[in-house]
Amino acid sequence: MVVKSTAVKVRHYKWDVEYMFWAPDCEERVVMGINGQFPGPTIRAEVGDTIHVDLTNKLSTEGVVIHWHGIRQLGTPWADGTASISQCPINPGETFTYRFVVDKAGTYFYHGHYGMQRSGGLYGTLIVEVPKGQHEPFHYDGEFNLLLSDWWHESIHEQEVGLSSKPLRWIGEPQTLLINGRGQYNCSLLPNFGNSSSTQCKFSGTEQCAPQILQVLPNKTYRVRLASTTALASLNIAIGNHKMIVVEADGNYVQPFTVDDLDIYSGESYSVLINTNQNPNKNYWISIGVRGRRPNTPPALTILNYKPTSASKLPTISPPITPAWNDYNHSKSFTKNIFALMGSHTPPATYDRRIALLNTQNRIDGFIKWAINNVSLVFPPTPYLGSIKFGLKSGFDQTNPPENFPSSYDIMSPPANPNTTTGSGVYRLRYNTTVDIILQNANALGANVSEIHPWHLHGHDFWVLGYGEGKFTKDDEAKFNLKNPPLRNTVVIFPYGWTALRFVADNPGAWAFHCHIEPHLHMGMGVVLASAVERVQGIPSNALTCGLTAKMFLKKKNIP
Amino acid sequence: MVVKSTAVKVRHYKWDVEYMFWAPDCEERVVMGINGQFPGPTIRAEVGDTIHVDLTNKLSTEGVVIHWHGIRQLGTPWADGTASISQCPINPGETFTYRFVVDKAGTYFYHGHYGMQRSGGLYGTLIVEVPKGQHEPFHYDGEFNLLLSDWWHESIHEQEVGLSSKPLRWIGEPQTLLINGRGQYNCSLLPNFGNSSSTQCKFSGTEQCAPQILQVLPNKTYRVRLASTTALASLNIAIGNHKMIVVEADGNYVQPFTVDDLDIYSGESYSVLINTNQNPNKNYWISIGVRGRRPNTPPALTILNYKPTSASKLPTISPPITPAWNDYNHSKSFTKNIFALMGSHTPPATYDRRIALLNTQNRIDGFIKWAINNVSLVFPPTPYLGSIKFGLKSGFDQTNPPENFPSSYDIMSPPANPNTTTGSGVYRLRYNTTVDIILQNANALGANVSEIHPWHLHGHDFWVLGYGEGKFTKDDEAKFNLKNPPLRNTVVIFPYGWTALRFVADNPGAWAFHCHIEPHLHMGMGVVLASAVERVQGIPSNALTCGLTAKMFLKKKNIP
Repeated sequence: MVVKSTAVKVRHYKWDVEYMFWAPDCEERVVMGINGQFPGPTIRAEVGDTIHVDLTNKLSTEGVVIHWHGIRQLGTPWADGTASISQCPINPGETFTYRFVVDKAGTYFYHGHYGMQRSGGLYGTLIVEVPKGQHEPFHYDGEFNLLLSDWWHESIHEQEVGLSSKPLRWIGEPQTLLINGRGQYNCSLLPNFGNSSSTQCKFSGTEQCAPQILQVLPNKTYRVRLASTTALASLNIAIGNHKMIVVEADGNYVQPFTVDDLDIYSGESYSVLINTNQNPNKNYWISIGVRGRRPNTPPALTILNYKPTSASKLPTISPPITPAWNDYNHSKSFTKNIFALMGSHTPPATYDRRIALLNTQNRIDGFIKWAINNVSLVFPPTPYLGSIKFGLKSGFDQTNPPENFPSSYDIMSPPANPNTTTGSGVYRLRYNTTVDIILQNANALGANVSEIHPWHLHGHDFWVLGYGEGKFTKDDEAKFNLKNPPLRNTVVIFPYGWTALRFVADNPGAWAFHCHIEPHLHMGMGVVLASAVERVQGIPSNALTCGLTAKMFLKKKNIP
Repeated sequence: MVVKSTAVKVRHYKWDVEYMFWAPDCEERVVMGINGQFPGPTIRAEVGDTIHVDLTNKLSTEGVVIHWHGIRQLGTPWADGTASISQCPINPGETFTYRFVVDKAGTYFYHGHYGMQRSGGLYGTLIVEVPKGQHEPFHYDGEFNLLLSDWWHESIHEQEVGLSSKPLRWIGEPQTLLINGRGQYNCSLLPNFGNSSSTQCKFSGTEQCAPQILQVLPNKTYRVRLASTTALASLNIAIGNHKMIVVEADGNYVQPFTVDDLDIYSGESYSVLINTNQNPNKNYWISIGVRGRRPNTPPALTILNYKPTSASKLPTISPPITPAWNDYNHSKSFTKNIFALMGSHTPPATYDRRIALLNTQNRIDGFIKWAINNVSLVFPPTPYLGSIKFGLKSGFDQTNPPENFPSSYDIMSPPANPNTTTGSGVYRLRYNTTVDIILQNANALGANVSEIHPWHLHGHDFWVLGYGEGKFTKDDEAKFNLKNPPLRNTVVIFPYGWTALRFVADNPGAWAFHCHIEPHLHMGMGVVLASAVERVQGIPSNALTCGLTAKMFLKKKNIP
């Protein structure tokens, strides 16, 4: 609910985005920083606050935008920070103001949404707290925030060229996993690291790659906020000897449940509670490993430090081993345990429209692409929000993209016809209609390969109605959870499986819905939803000074 | 003279600019290419032709522009392709049309003029021939074109961050010199290369780094067009056993004179004639070496191949050794031998305004900068052409930059006060006035260092009236050459010296005048001249869809 009281606080930020030398994993590279920091500054606000960010592009030749991941931007679709969809990229030297209300408590983050700038390090945390005097539906004594990401030594510019090359040059697995922008490459926090060529890191504590230690007092409850902005990696986190109680997912409360370890996909956030009920004279490893892809990246580590025990006292118990990368049953079991907190709003019992989206890996003229219903998304230079609002038909493909895929499609085998086409059409949603989306996974180009894809929806939360194996059929509908499905903004499809979700198109705007794996989106894995754009009002005109909208604003072709 | 006949040819080009993997010096890196080529396609036109280039930006997140170096853009200042001055950068996915007349025969080139994109490989050759039926003032039987550049293995993105860092991270000397985009790193065309770790290159001929051999017939005259678009290196070219007759400089005829070797600075072009009057059973080395900086880059080599002698027959005489890097007397002697071809237009005898520009290396808050009269140029986001045309006073500093520098300034020592300030003011020139500029060199920040700077003027040629040692004084004026000074668009200042030039401000527009060394410009070494902008008409409005001009075109702040 958007709080409209004039007493509400406006939180002002002045941010400069720039490239800078940094050593996220002890190896120096160029990262995208904000105000000289990597990751960017953490925003903390209260429900109902207005966030006002004057974002200045201090890059030399690149445009920039920032997406506020998980914030629905109710009534402010132009502040969604998605290049080609909600606004033109901000030019070097220019400032754009993001101004929006945070209407729901939870753990969010922000990140670049242009090219592969997220992967380049343009991200940070956004925490929305319940208003003073109100309470979360759980108690905690202290709080930590772990923003998880993955990191490559190759520059994003080179990665981009590789992904757009023929033959494809895949980016490979990340060199390092980062916790709050910190990881260790070529050294380990562990004294006897498996890889004998790796030595124990020696830190004074001021290094950019020195881990942030989580300092706790015994017999307290801590909230650990987890968010993943990885470019590629699906992650699993475990804390030695400590169970975690999951209480929040993507800014929505869930029915608390206890786990030994937790899967988190790119684009997701969670809050877990931990009780510091272990031997207070010891410290414990926090370990984060790769899921869903054959891991070629060492786990990220940091330490849960029981005060007054010295932080430098190494845990006596080995770091928890995260589940095997391909133990999908473990992942499914976790995922299917997530339910909305009792008393949460339930979804409409029926839908007005159902769209099935087949996820395939394809080829176009020898280039490798990802496609949805055989269309690989290419972003046009004019933002959809402007093209649609002003009826600029050449702004994007006017043909509606397919609602479904051939029922004969064999999802268990490589595509019989691997060729696809590019497209920029949109799914136009009628205002306030209930939309079901069936995300259907399939076999990739290679035999016996089907990857995990975490799909993220802008502008809305959705209910996750269910997951299933193989091809979705009408009969699967009977198994939908309409009683207490969790509200999310990101949901995964498992290999060879489907995921069903439902949302109400109640937020006018143009919205991305896409695989949150950065190179997959770069290769076309997304769609654009347009919801009652005619109702959108008050777009700042400087959001649209590019492409056809710029041309439209210009009265004359030549200036006399 | 601009040919206005409607019979004149319009030459259409459709260019896509993109990054691509390429091995200019046998080591693969990312280069900026046009239509899949590096260097970009060569344009050949005739005097009076209209060049029409539809330039599409296929980069992922970077803007782009192309400057047509040496083309004065008479009446078309918006086609000069200089970001922040003549136009907004072209956004990714968008197309901008450069349309201009080539009004003067000569050897030109084009290159990126945004960030360090020129250094990234965005360049190519532009040759303007005399109209059919007319003749150059010299005869030749065949023609070659050598576009010279320097190449780094570090990406331009990383170079840029280094130049803007505190402490400065200097880009260092280039790894390789390129001839038409081809050089050799870690191997040499020479069988017994000085560096014993280097082996002889083995080429099949199809490699991207295989040299272009110049195939000639005996007893003919060849025109060799030379142009340098180096980011840093001053070069010298020599051809074994062959003298060169200099006949053209920067698209202007010069009084022919003969040299054994020729200095060429970044931004310059020359035509030389060679007579193939040597033993036709042999081949000869063409050698290009570094001048003016302690060379840390091997010479570029290729072969003058007398047909029917096999191209694979190595020359028996060693490659010519270019003069010592610091033999400035040699350079000055060459430079002072350049005179306009007899009968050329002479400069006005007097000037209306004289501007002295002191070149200094300075510090701002610990960052290293170059400054002109103690102002280090920072480019604003709104193009000057638009800001000035529309009186947008916040578009740039309204204070006029200094016309001179303190007479007490000691050019022989490091600056007594090394601090400087940034600025974006312009020198406003009255229409059709005659302007003298005295470029004054000085000692850099370190003791006993004064560098060479090749200054390039957009929109005009200028007469080079003279060069001198030490600080320019009023008495030096008596030594000016007003009889047959060469017309150029680029001129060098020697260490601790001055250079005087004169031009008529007869081309309304906003024009850069800057050191053509890419990192020096990046560090602020340039000024902006505004000439009768009120007379400029017909600016394509899509040249100005950024910054304050975009805001001005937008009638409302918010779209209802």
